[in-house]
Amino acid sequence: MNTLGIFGGGQLARMLALAAAPLGVRCRVYEPGAEPCAAPYADIVRADWDDRAALASFASGLSAATFEFENVPTASVEAVAHTVPIRPSPAALAVAQDRLSEKQCFNGLGLATPHFIAVDDLAGLKRAVEALALPAVLKTRRLGYDGKGQFVLRAGADIERAWQTLGGVPLILEAFVPFARELSVIAVRGLDGDFRPWALTQNWHRDGVLALSLAPAPDPRGLARRASVIAERLAVHLNYVGVLTVELFEHDDQLLVNEMAPRVHNSGHWTIEGAQTSQFANHVRAVLGLALGTTDARGPAAMINFVGAMPSRDAALRVPGLNWHDYGKTPKPGRKLGHATLIADDAAELRRRLQLLQGALDSSVDVAPLLDALAQ
Amino acid sequence: MNTLGIFGGGQLARMLALAAAPLGVRCRVYEPGAEPCAAPYADIVRADWDDRAALASFASGLSAATFEFENVPTASVEAVAHTVPIRPSPAALAVAQDRLSEKQCFNGLGLATPHFIAVDDLAGLKRAVEALALPAVLKTRRLGYDGKGQFVLRAGADIERAWQTLGGVPLILEAFVPFARELSVIAVRGLDGDFRPWALTQNWHRDGVLALSLAPAPDPRGLARRASVIAERLAVHLNYVGVLTVELFEHDDQLLVNEMAPRVHNSGHWTIEGAQTSQFANHVRAVLGLALGTTDARGPAAMINFVGAMPSRDAALRVPGLNWHDYGKTPKPGRKLGHATLIADDAAELRRRLQLLQGALDSSVDVAPLLDALAQ
Repeated sequence: MNTLGIFGGGQLARMLALAAAPLGVRCRVYEPGAEPCAAPYADIVRADWDDRAALASFASGLSAATFEFENVPTASVEAVAHTVPIRPSPAALAVAQDRLSEKQCFNGLGLATPHFIAVDDLAGLKRAVEALALPAVLKTRRLGYDGKGQFVLRAGADIERAWQTLGGVPLILEAFVPFARELSVIAVRGLDGDFRPWALTQNWHRDGVLALSLAPAPDPRGLARRASVIAERLAVHLNYVGVLTVELFEHDDQLLVNEMAPRVHNSGHWTIEGAQTSQFANHVRAVLGLALGTTDARGPAAMINFVGAMPSRDAALRVPGLNWHDYGKTPKPGRKLGHATLIADDAAELRRRLQLLQGALDSSVDVAPLLDALAQ
Repeated sequence: MNTLGIFGGGQLARMLALAAAPLGVRCRVYEPGAEPCAAPYADIVRADWDDRAALASFASGLSAATFEFENVPTASVEAVAHTVPIRPSPAALAVAQDRLSEKQCFNGLGLATPHFIAVDDLAGLKRAVEALALPAVLKTRRLGYDGKGQFVLRAGADIERAWQTLGGVPLILEAFVPFARELSVIAVRGLDGDFRPWALTQNWHRDGVLALSLAPAPDPRGLARRASVIAERLAVHLNYVGVLTVELFEHDDQLLVNEMAPRVHNSGHWTIEGAQTSQFANHVRAVLGLALGTTDARGPAAMINFVGAMPSRDAALRVPGLNWHDYGKTPKPGRKLGHATLIADDAAELRRRLQLLQGALDSSVDVAPLLDALAQ
């Protein structure tokens, strides 16, 4: 029996813990917040990030430690790294924690990104706006997620307001890409270097938060292979172990790398039922040094996020191929509470089932973009 | 959020709890034994079966209660039934608890069984042996499982010894059937009467304990349909809610009903990865009155039980399509500790992977019967 440490106790830790159980792996979560939703299925160490005694007790007896989000303070990870293998490595985590170093890393590997300029003061922001032109997106270099720590500048008048909102910490201005589609590639790399991508995933965001995913993404231009090459180049460069997510923009037949997440990812939730091995099971296997499972898709899958409120489970379960995931969290506006994954044998049947699902759920859920994508 | 009560805290309860989690259902287990293996994933009420206060505390706030084994004392179930729906019903449980009433029920529904005679004393045993001829199997009417409470009589000299071993409780003598194959049909019935069978399963036992399962069973004679009709007739008669397992003998082109299990079953473990919806998820859905999921098979699946010792997980995981299930139990001779399910797209590939698995595991695991069945 292995014990796997996870920094962070949210739904990703919960799903890791559920996937770990059959492998004979118990998860132990380190989480400063109250009521982590992983709690019923993992052991919990609840303490502040800088609590040395708690970190030592967390580390005791772990086979390995990993994280469910990239904003874990480096010092906390390093405190554990003395006695426990951290996978992916603290170095890979550090790259992903900073939007500037992340994009420099991508460019250094020959991977195209949206244009970007580091911004440290108002004068620098003005220069950057002149260089990149508007619209552009001002982002904090660190600690951003789900659209937080971002400001879209559309006109010169936005500059002062953007600075007032985000200024005072290191920033990055990124050219706004009028992308055709948002895509992500989720892949896993084993301790022995074995690299396996899942099917390319198309994503739709709402208010900066992932709303819908479709996998395999419609791929008339053969982007899946290119996306996999991008993920592999990155993974090899970082000597990466575990699941890695790369978010991409499709623009003018090009794939631009938007950002990476050094962890299991919301856009990979469809793999639980839609792939031979889920991102959660393969992350556990990778970070414990076990052989990886097949990542082949079982058929088309659509993932619908439930944000702020859960629709009716009982109505949704009447739709064939519907898989329900309730994270057991207290509802709060903007909070990810659960998701559903709809699977089918082919795209036409998936579309028919999505229509049934739309009918079964209230209007808080809108699957129209999925229907459009599947109609093409 | 629902809470589902489960009588018994072994691996079946553990797998029910893991399947219940994504549905927003927490499981609460009632278990008199120490260290129930469901413990890390369910709440535990540890008390004797006749502890009225503990039973009341167990029942408090449950949406429904079910059981993971059929030998729960009727009085314990009835104590809870005053306030909580018991599914399947105590009446269905009572039928399954007694080999005599079970077989009488089957025959009453026109379902063929091996011949049987109730035995209450040594003289009765002698008369029964004369009527059925040898070989025959003497069984306790109640509390038998995994070959326990059984004695195979091969010659007249065995009669006294069989009586000494099992006598003193109500018994049943069953004609020994030289069956061609052991099969089982696992099916689920919803609160609304919706009935769904999984693929027919072929089983192999070793020392009275299930060793291997293969699903869908090779079926040149169209037995799957007949097995489903048997399970449905039984389920409708018992007004059954939940997963029901019927064990069958194939003999002279006939299906004989051997016994039923009013619960999820070891021979249905392959459904976790081998079917669209597992027996565990559908049992939870059924007993909570939710719509049932599709039971269609995803492809051929082979299940290998690990009894007494776990082979090397790390070696097994190198086989493509291998799914590992460690129940987290302390090893003990004859104890079911875990299982593996191997899946593939077709029978030829499943056979190839089984050969890889045999090579990866030590000799404690013998998959030869699966290889033979798949070669035909």
